[in-house]
Amino acid sequence: EILAAIAGFFAEGAAPKPLAGRRAVVTSGPTHEPIDPVRYIANRSSGKQGHAVAAALAALGADVTLISGPVTLADPPGVRVVRVETAAEMLAASLAAVQTPAGPADIAVCAAAVADWRVATAAGDKVKKGPDGPPTLALAENPDILATLSQPGPRRPRLVVGFAAETRDVLTYAAAKLAKKGCDWIVANDVATGTGTFGGDDNQVHLLRRDAAPEAWPRLSKTAVAQRLAQAIADTFDPSATATSEAV
Amino acid sequence: EILAAIAGFFAEGAAPKPLAGRRAVVTSGPTHEPIDPVRYIANRSSGKQGHAVAAALAALGADVTLISGPVTLADPPGVRVVRVETAAEMLAASLAAVQTPAGPADIAVCAAAVADWRVATAAGDKVKKGPDGPPTLALAENPDILATLSQPGPRRPRLVVGFAAETRDVLTYAAAKLAKKGCDWIVANDVATGTGTFGGDDNQVHLLRRDAAPEAWPRLSKTAVAQRLAQAIADTFDPSATATSEAV
Repeated sequence: EILAAIAGFFAEGAAPKPLAGRRAVVTSGPTHEPIDPVRYIANRSSGKQGHAVAAALAALGADVTLISGPVTLADPPGVRVVRVETAAEMLAASLAAVQTPAGPADIAVCAAAVADWRVATAAGDKVKKGPDGPPTLALAENPDILATLSQPGPRRPRLVVGFAAETRDVLTYAAAKLAKKGCDWIVANDVATGTGTFGGDDNQVHLLRRDAAPEAWPRLSKTAVAQRLAQAIADTFDPSATATSEAV
Repeated sequence: EILAAIAGFFAEGAAPKPLAGRRAVVTSGPTHEPIDPVRYIANRSSGKQGHAVAAALAALGADVTLISGPVTLADPPGVRVVRVETAAEMLAASLAAVQTPAGPADIAVCAAAVADWRVATAAGDKVKKGPDGPPTLALAENPDILATLSQPGPRRPRLVVGFAAETRDVLTYAAAKLAKKGCDWIVANDVATGTGTFGGDDNQVHLLRRDAAPEAWPRLSKTAVAQRLAQAIADTFDPSATATSEAV
């Protein structure tokens, strides 16, 4: 019994659960915006980074709901997964998961690459080639999920984290996004052609927080980026946690 | 030795190779047409039917090159696979595979769901949301791979088979496609929402041949549709093959 208690103590030490009792909602993957029943507008997000964040938060003890666009990834273990296709569906599912009768989730991480635009009027039947030449696609702006979840008030999560994927001037655009969306942190990454970030297993990010200098993280696996982000989130909710585990 | 010869005879009988020595080129999957470095226009083709056709032709002994758009399927065994993204790339790869210095391939099966249109001018950097509201996407017509491979002449494969995916009036559109493209056969299927054909494992098709009444096939797995199509192709190249194997 003493040995079991000691083993239990060290097992707990090996896998601390600083986010136990916290509820987190993570969005991940692309959205698909229909043009007609067979065609759609998509983006290159694989969902790997968002899914890894969901897994990492769950590993630290959080109760995680993952709102996932169309991806080919396995569901992360120990995570509730809600599957959606369009940005409108992702917003509805995110609001339902964040704003519960029991109060808002503690943490929202918007890692999905939500389409900025949908096709204004999706066709009910397949659009055919015709004598008038190619059609023109009129687009309409999609709802902004990150800005919506960041709106101040009693239904706002205490910590709202967004992701910014840019092909140039990454820090400039990310700082502007942080200011404009009203979220607390932005994880900014460079997805320019040749970086291999989209669909790849590695990521090189900057973490931008309100009222703090941007942190440049080294190139890491998406799993390691997620674990570091989850730990930073845990530290925010309980600043003593890291100090204690370091002291041990 | 006698036993080995008998075993060999039956093994051969169990897996006849009526297409041995024939070269086939199969296209499969969707194409992705870039809007900018992160966004693209896609369609719902999973590639399951085209990949199954490539596997079925290879199983009958054909030397198969599979030109595949972006799919999440494993490469079929015993098949040469060339990966492409856009319709323009698929056309170039198909022409290179069909029109070799040794003469044209014997069989071309165009099962890919090639995008009819691409974005007229894809952007080099990610298109940003701006004060002017959503952009409009001007489209341009893509090359027609099936029609190109069907053009009469010494470089045409002896048998060119197209696929038609429609959401309504399937037989009417398929018959028009057969007449217009100049191919020999069309495999027509209904991909309307609710049929489950796109991405699903089953398919219900009609086979249309020039100068023959359309054949309605029962609902079958995509693998079974592919095997039946490959056998029909083999029968065309050697009408005695089926009769012989039935006589045995």
